[in-house]
Amino acid sequence: KDDNYHIKIDSEIRPGALTYGEFFIQGKTKEEVLISCHICHPSLCNDNLSGIIIATFIAGFLQTLKTRFSYRFLFIPGTIGSIAWLSRNENKLQNIKYGLVLTLLGDTSPFHYKKSRRGNAEIDKIMEFLLRNESNSQIREFSPYGYDERQFCSPGFNLPVGRFSRKPHGEFPEYHTSADNLDFVKPVSLGESFRLLLKVIMLIENNLKYINLNPKGEPQLGKRGLYRQIGGESRQKDYEMALLWILSFSDGDNSLLDIAIRSGIDFSVISDAAQKLQHSSLLSAC
Amino acid sequence: KDDNYHIKIDSEIRPGALTYGEFFIQGKTKEEVLISCHICHPSLCNDNLSGIIIATFIAGFLQTLKTRFSYRFLFIPGTIGSIAWLSRNENKLQNIKYGLVLTLLGDTSPFHYKKSRRGNAEIDKIMEFLLRNESNSQIREFSPYGYDERQFCSPGFNLPVGRFSRKPHGEFPEYHTSADNLDFVKPVSLGESFRLLLKVIMLIENNLKYINLNPKGEPQLGKRGLYRQIGGESRQKDYEMALLWILSFSDGDNSLLDIAIRSGIDFSVISDAAQKLQHSSLLSAC
Amino acid sequence: KDDNYHIKIDSEIRPGALTYGEFFIQGKTKEEVLISCHICHPSLCNDNLSGIIIATFIAGFLQTLKTRFSYRFLFIPGTIGSIAWLSRNENKLQNIKYGLVLTLLGDTSPFHYKKSRRGNAEIDKIMEFLLRNESNSQIREFSPYGYDERQFCSPGFNLPVGRFSRKPHGEFPEYHTSADNLDFVKPVSLGESFRLLLKVIMLIENNLKYINLNPKGEPQLGKRGLYRQIGGESRQKDYEMALLWILSFSDGDNSLLDIAIRSGIDFSVISDAAQKLQHSSLLSAC
Repeated sequence: KDDNYHIKIDSEIRPGALTYGEFFIQGKTKEEVLISCHICHPSLCNDNLSGIIIATFIAGFLQTLKTRFSYRFLFIPGTIGSIAWLSRNENKLQNIKYGLVLTLLGDTSPFHYKKSRRGNAEIDKIMEFLLRNESNSQIREFSPYGYDERQFCSPGFNLPVGRFSRKPHGEFPEYHTSADNLDFVKPVSLGESFRLLLKVIMLIENNLKYINLNPKGEPQLGKRGLYRQIGGESRQKDYEMALLWILSFSDGDNSLLDIAIRSGIDFSVISDAAQKLQHSSLLSAC
Repeated sequence: KDDNYHIKIDSEIRPGALTYGEFFIQGKTKEEVLISCHICHPSLCNDNLSGIIIATFIAGFLQTLKTRFSYRFLFIPGTIGSIAWLSRNENKLQNIKYGLVLTLLGDTSPFHYKKSRRGNAEIDKIMEFLLRNESNSQIREFSPYGYDERQFCSPGFNLPVGRFSRKPHGEFPEYHTSADNLDFVKPVSLGESFRLLLKVIMLIENNLKYINLNPKGEPQLGKRGLYRQIGGESRQKDYEMALLWILSFSDGDNSLLDIAIRSGIDFSVISDAAQKLQHSSLLSAC
Repeated sequence: KDDNYHIKIDSEIRPGALTYGEFFIQGKTKEEVLISCHICHPSLCNDNLSGIIIATFIAGFLQTLKTRFSYRFLFIPGTIGSIAWLSRNENKLQNIKYGLVLTLLGDTSPFHYKKSRRGNAEIDKIMEFLLRNESNSQIREFSPYGYDERQFCSPGFNLPVGRFSRKPHGEFPEYHTSADNLDFVKPVSLGESFRLLLKVIMLIENNLKYINLNPKGEPQLGKRGLYRQIGGESRQKDYEMALLWILSFSDGDNSLLDIAIRSGIDFSVISDAAQKLQHSSLLSAC
């Protein structure tokens, strides 16, 4: 309650060491996806035990797969941790193609994504695409305040790193209080956050650009077994439209994500259709 | 009514020939305007006897004029016809500067224009400009489904060809039924469609870029007989504003269409004013 | 009242001279700000004694300062005056970096700004930024009608000159009548117009681009005395956010105005913060 309190802060400044965790999964290419979470107050459950848990489970899941990209997970104290890591790893930064800071992923509010400083990085486009199907989700422009995206996006690095959370810091009453505890974090919320990140990774892994190998007029899809034999409504309508969209826009400029955005068709349908077209020698990866 | 029907399809596959109609009007330049319509089911009145009729009347009308552009009319069976024509005429495709697929032009619904795959071709700009004055008209983005724009716009050709129709295919109950007959198509609708295409052609023919030959400060228009001698409201206000807009924006970058869009003045007034300025040696065609 | 009147216009055409006023304030650089007003009917109080008065007071005020830019004031008869001045000073035009035509600044209607023909000149960006905080203010696109912006923006010159007024010409009943008199013009309106122009000049003078000299991660602001020592709400919150915004976006591409627009923080706070950062050797002017 409102009253006057005496607070004793018993601290000292002395030489010490900074500890952080780093976990790397080697993919087929040296291009990297960076996943970072702050570990400096894990006793607060949403901020940021939730981010730590999600990052850990994503890492565990990816270990079981063969991935195209390499994945690097950072478990670091906020601000000083990211600055220390950046300072020690400048030579690796050019490999980072996508990045996310994970935080506040266990409460029940809708998803928020804060764009990278670039504002038009591929990760920004991916998150905008995926969140437009998530009810009440919000996209925010970059601002130089918040979590470790401040450091990853500082102008000397300007990495393509955004921030994925639910309700942003400071915008809920439990923030930085003892009420940010196990009751505030819900398993179903953690599960949804995990599920959305799997979609992000699926999209990153499969977001290739292709070239239509038969670009002058439409190829006959029926005789290649790609198209239904009779007309009418059909559950595979999205799939067949996906074939046409991919053939029309696979000119080397448009990624599968670009085609999904333009067509409004689910990315997984687009991705499946692209593989079918590739098997029929109608499409070639750039 | 809803019931079970037995349908006998008596067809065979054997060697044959494909027939299509092509009509060419030579203009002053070899640059071409392509007008295409599908003839594969002319017994359906709106889809597509209406397109065939409009194309035929436009061709007849243009024969009586001396045009700047050449005009090519195709009367082809859908899909296979356009693919066949494209395959036999690849060397001519570079001459095509504007193109329209004509279909469904006789019913009473508002005009629809579907943009070319490029999305920003001159024909797209022209149709957007002209349809913004047509009540309830709609502009749609390109999609790889529909009529022969699918072939003309396939990525290996990517021609500046859009589609002009009234209610699009599949969006009215008479579509592909015996109810698409002479009662469904109205003379006044055909007339309006014809009239709008004349505006398109007038705009294509007159959409030049000019250079202001007196670009430093405004020239005195009154002493050149281009401007009213006394002030006040006047029916020729649009015309006089057109003179000023043309002089201000004729820097070699802006076409008369660009100036009409920017000023909101009717294209025919802009075009007339440009000719007056040219006669007074204030303007020169690029 | 409505009736028939006989009007005798007693005029003659004979050789004469055109008189205009020009006042120049030398700044540190030869880059110029042009302020122009028409003097051809000063008996009409709003159109344009108001513009003449405001320009005169701005000139008087600037004389007392050391400015970065040079300032040139023109007091000219409309149309013929600006054409005459432009014709005699073509060699100076390249120095003009910003310009405003001042007119109709004494009535009580909201501010209007008409953009330069370029539409994206720095002066356009500045006026849009400042007027978005002025209630009911309006921004209009360039049109080749109005006051001397017609000449300054004619395509052969295309100078970055916009027009600043309150209610535009012809849009109020007192326009060009004897009712445009001292009663129609209000001191408080003149004062507000003057105040807004001071903001424009303050912004022009201070709108530099900087480079963050410590761009890899955020510098520690507290130990440099730039940041509050304890957390919590604070009146200097805007100032501290300004420090972060400037450090984040001072990459040589963004001006302080760009940063003010992006952050939503008042330009004067941004400008003060930039000076503090410069004194701490964290920032260098480009």
